[in-house]
Amino acid sequence: MISNLESSIEGILKVFHNYSGKEGDKYKLSKAELKNLLEGEFGESMKSCKDPQVVEDIMNGLDEDKDGEISFQEFVVLVFGLTVSCNEFFQDMDAQGSKKAEQSK
Amino acid sequence: MISNLESSIEGILKVFHNYSGKEGDKYKLSKAELKNLLEGEFGESMKSCKDPQVVEDIMNGLDEDKDGEISFQEFVVLVFGLTVSCNEFFQDMDAQGSKKAEQSK
Repeated sequence: MISNLESSIEGILKVFHNYSGKEGDKYKLSKAELKNLLEGEFGESMKSCKDPQVVEDIMNGLDEDKDGEISFQEFVVLVFGLTVSCNEFFQDMDAQGSKKAEQSK
Repeated sequence: MISNLESSIEGILKVFHNYSGKEGDKYKLSKAELKNLLEGEFGESMKSCKDPQVVEDIMNGLDEDKDGEISFQEFVVLVFGLTVSCNEFFQDMDAQGSKKAEQSK
């Protein structure tokens, strides 16, 4: 049986390859595949974002080697940036919760 | 409903905080908590590793600010490295499989 952390790692691989395998290099995301991934995995955020350039900007931000595609290594930088941000949000909320609990004693 | 990628990100947060909350700074892993995490999440690999220094070495490798503890940001570097390695292994296997399929035509 795989552990929780192994399952999370496997999940990241599965998501990437689920979208990258559609066209062109099956181990890289084209711009269209990146758009599908962002809309499929972050639908709510993408819907609320009114900037038509958002996919272009994310693509340019991730495409380190400027080959016009996103490799897995380039993609994981996005995932870990989001993971660190989510953790900061969680820790802030958690710390505020603890402070309120202290004050109400 | 959260997406597969959001679920993987959430999973990484849960694993970290499940182990970091036991002693000391609840937002950081002490050496003992890191040992528990490694044994709990990578039990098979840790069992087959005969090096008594392995936890010490991983701790030193991750502890960027040398405060004797592992923050979430330092921990994510480990997860990032493992994820990229797993993907390389997967892509190699996949490419070999495709080659064999070609040859057997």
